[in-house]
Amino acid sequence: MTAARSKRAGREQRLAKRAAKPVFDPCPPGQRGGAYKPLTESEIQTIFDTALRLLEQLGMGEVPARLQADLLAAGATEDGRGRLLFPWAMVEATLKMAAKTFFLHGKDASRSIEVGGDRVYFGTGGAAVQTLDMESGVYRPSTLADLHDFTRLQDTLANVSWFTRCCVATDVPDNLDLDVNTVYALIRNTTKPVATSFTLAAHVAPIIEMLDIAAGGPGEFAKRPFLAAHISPVISPMRFGEDAVDVVYECVRHNIPMSCITAAQAGATAPATLAGFLAQSLAETLASLVMVNAISPGFPMIFSNWPFVIDLRTGAFSGGSGETAVLNAASAQISNWLGLPSGVACSMSDAKAIDAQYGMEKGITSLAAALAGGNMIYESSGMTASLLGVSFEGFVLDDEMHSNTYRALRGIEVTEENLGFDAICDAVLGDGHFLGGAHTFAAMERDYFYPTLADRNEPRTWAQSGARDAWDLARDLAKQILDSHHPTYLTEAQDKAIREKLNILL
Amino acid sequence: MTAARSKRAGREQRLAKRAAKPVFDPCPPGQRGGAYKPLTESEIQTIFDTALRLLEQLGMGEVPARLQADLLAAGATEDGRGRLLFPWAMVEATLKMAAKTFFLHGKDASRSIEVGGDRVYFGTGGAAVQTLDMESGVYRPSTLADLHDFTRLQDTLANVSWFTRCCVATDVPDNLDLDVNTVYALIRNTTKPVATSFTLAAHVAPIIEMLDIAAGGPGEFAKRPFLAAHISPVISPMRFGEDAVDVVYECVRHNIPMSCITAAQAGATAPATLAGFLAQSLAETLASLVMVNAISPGFPMIFSNWPFVIDLRTGAFSGGSGETAVLNAASAQISNWLGLPSGVACSMSDAKAIDAQYGMEKGITSLAAALAGGNMIYESSGMTASLLGVSFEGFVLDDEMHSNTYRALRGIEVTEENLGFDAICDAVLGDGHFLGGAHTFAAMERDYFYPTLADRNEPRTWAQSGARDAWDLARDLAKQILDSHHPTYLTEAQDKAIREKLNILL
Repeated sequence: MTAARSKRAGREQRLAKRAAKPVFDPCPPGQRGGAYKPLTESEIQTIFDTALRLLEQLGMGEVPARLQADLLAAGATEDGRGRLLFPWAMVEATLKMAAKTFFLHGKDASRSIEVGGDRVYFGTGGAAVQTLDMESGVYRPSTLADLHDFTRLQDTLANVSWFTRCCVATDVPDNLDLDVNTVYALIRNTTKPVATSFTLAAHVAPIIEMLDIAAGGPGEFAKRPFLAAHISPVISPMRFGEDAVDVVYECVRHNIPMSCITAAQAGATAPATLAGFLAQSLAETLASLVMVNAISPGFPMIFSNWPFVIDLRTGAFSGGSGETAVLNAASAQISNWLGLPSGVACSMSDAKAIDAQYGMEKGITSLAAALAGGNMIYESSGMTASLLGVSFEGFVLDDEMHSNTYRALRGIEVTEENLGFDAICDAVLGDGHFLGGAHTFAAMERDYFYPTLADRNEPRTWAQSGARDAWDLARDLAKQILDSHHPTYLTEAQDKAIREKLNILL
Repeated sequence: MTAARSKRAGREQRLAKRAAKPVFDPCPPGQRGGAYKPLTESEIQTIFDTALRLLEQLGMGEVPARLQADLLAAGATEDGRGRLLFPWAMVEATLKMAAKTFFLHGKDASRSIEVGGDRVYFGTGGAAVQTLDMESGVYRPSTLADLHDFTRLQDTLANVSWFTRCCVATDVPDNLDLDVNTVYALIRNTTKPVATSFTLAAHVAPIIEMLDIAAGGPGEFAKRPFLAAHISPVISPMRFGEDAVDVVYECVRHNIPMSCITAAQAGATAPATLAGFLAQSLAETLASLVMVNAISPGFPMIFSNWPFVIDLRTGAFSGGSGETAVLNAASAQISNWLGLPSGVACSMSDAKAIDAQYGMEKGITSLAAALAGGNMIYESSGMTASLLGVSFEGFVLDDEMHSNTYRALRGIEVTEENLGFDAICDAVLGDGHFLGGAHTFAAMERDYFYPTLADRNEPRTWAQSGARDAWDLARDLAKQILDSHHPTYLTEAQDKAIREKLNILL
């Protein structure tokens, strides 16, 4: 081998080594947020005071009888017009006793996450009814098979920290069958923390039977619950919903942690002004918190104050705007200021195609919510079409976006070693550059995220490789994962036992 | 007309009225940034101290003789090894005398912007050599005709607050012809503040002749300069570049405001560690500031500390990552902390296609830089392919992205009226919703941005309209603008006078 060939071969080896995917993740989930503060301290205080005035003077309507008794016992009063008022001191007492941090367990304990504080995690939360078909490029009704596929797809994605069923199996007409088969799809295909919703309180008990089988026996699930419930016990503006409240009681009984979601819509079920929206929505989420703590003090509840925006020209929900970004960031900031585990909905998009609109809307909304310190950022992966749709390609693209967001959140470590005064002097007085130096080499994999899907080639190379776009590249990766990843997290015996008790359709 | 038909007609009129583009812009350029602080106060101080130690102990190399004399007169000292040292007190004195805010004038005064403080403006700054062809969908060399087209396209876009030539006319081989024809394309096709670069100092005087003609006569340009210069007088790491320094002197002589750009690359010409990068890059941009103020105290200079990231696996420049987002945000924060007009480069992307990668990378980098308060965010419109490319479709899409970013920046006005305590009570005790109420109606156009390109339809409507993506929709809009907008901002007499003096090619 000539010296030139040997040199070239050495260079190629180095390049191949560098091109290989690093095993180390420089920006894993759970980075700290909070560097972005859309509201000042006094603005938060004013919004909080307004929320407490609403709870004290306007109160909540349509309180179910059982809840009414519990709330009256906890200090609420009746206004004589059918509404229940929450005195200021009652809400403050609730804030003291409420759970501040707790674990969302994975069936695999290494996948559990602790929520609260300033740690940020992305996960899902959708209930899409349409799936973006990978073959046709347009939407069709979501199916139970889709849900199984989405669950095993995200099982491989590092930045989906928990998985709430992202779509509704529209091919399952019976509500009990739907709830049962939804949870079955989750626990069969992933060991991450999972979450679902219950159409009726009566569906909780049979599903607990299934969860106990998966957990190893009767009563085992409740010891380390690896499924959480999404519940919207408050209907905006300012009233309770009876079915959802019943589900709350049943979840408390079975030790299922809850994400109590306020899903007001600006200009429809809450004020269109952003400040007014936040005041009402905060009051409503506090009403959920008061309820949960009146039923069971300290019971784990994610404080999910999700500001939703509608396009006031048409009345259609919109998830991808600057208003959505700042509202959810403010919601996270307020919840964190109260010391509560903050749930917000971001990384949403109104786009149907997996296109520049999709990327931009997801980019700005997810970064805003994450920088503000949202502990659990729901709806963050795969959702499209103003939450009506969900996409396999979207899931894999969003996972890479979250790495970029986490990298930004990780921030800048200002240490003597990193400041590199000596390294700079050495480079300037020596070779005149930093390439290949020890200081650079140490940072290369520790401090930089290298994307898999994002194309960093120059235009000619890109064109020669077929001028493919991100949607196209993501489709390949999604298909590759779906072709190869077929987890079976239930034993044969567990699967059999579940199928004997319940109507498992797939 | 029957009552039903009348009602329907009324509803259709209302819908049509609502669907019409609002004339009022709820989130114009110049929103205030600074709510995102990636660095703590003490971290900024530490980085600043390190930068000043670098200037004091390591200093700058390759200082041209004329500049050396001026710097020595202003307090610099020689280190005996050919480097010039800037004592701590000299830099602090520079910071005191440096221009803090000033106007970038448009030829049309109503388009001028004041830079400095915490106002955020997006504009361009590129020097792309490849244009994304609207017909073929791939790249070809950029031409002078492209530059004319880009200039008149952006002339219609509200969120390009100044226009630096975005591409290099690769079909103009002579450097003087290139510089002259570049400026001609700018002043012919827009009255916004414009900017260019000068290959050599000798090119400034003839271009000033052209600018004087456009301004109304000899000496008129200098009275209200509507063109700025992009100059990189410092070559990383820590030395001056002679040609660029010559251009600085010539711009000072002709009263051309300058953006002095430090364009270090992390891991190549500056440390790979983010903190070390910021320390060196800050020192280098301060060296430019010291130079400008030694030549002409208080001369207007944008403090353009642009952190550039390279992919350390390949050495290629990369503009769309989480590292880029946080580094540019930190740079803006540091410059603003120093009270200087901050220039950063964001809204960049490595994508070649106008796709989800494009949108996501632009979304996260532009939001980060804007929330951190970057006064002038360069490279923000149309740039693709790690700044190698530029796209017409990109320009119109980015303009809408900037509106979303500005909307997020505008934030949340917490006032009694906006908090809407009474409006909430009225809705809850009345109709049970906020649709159509006076409080909602007042907010509808005042507080919400309604996009033109972003598709908010439901999946079926989108599919029935041809399942088009954002790239496709943007192409239509870009073509429509280019077909209809043919400004002629030079009078016939001015145009003739310029063509008599200079070699105008188009």
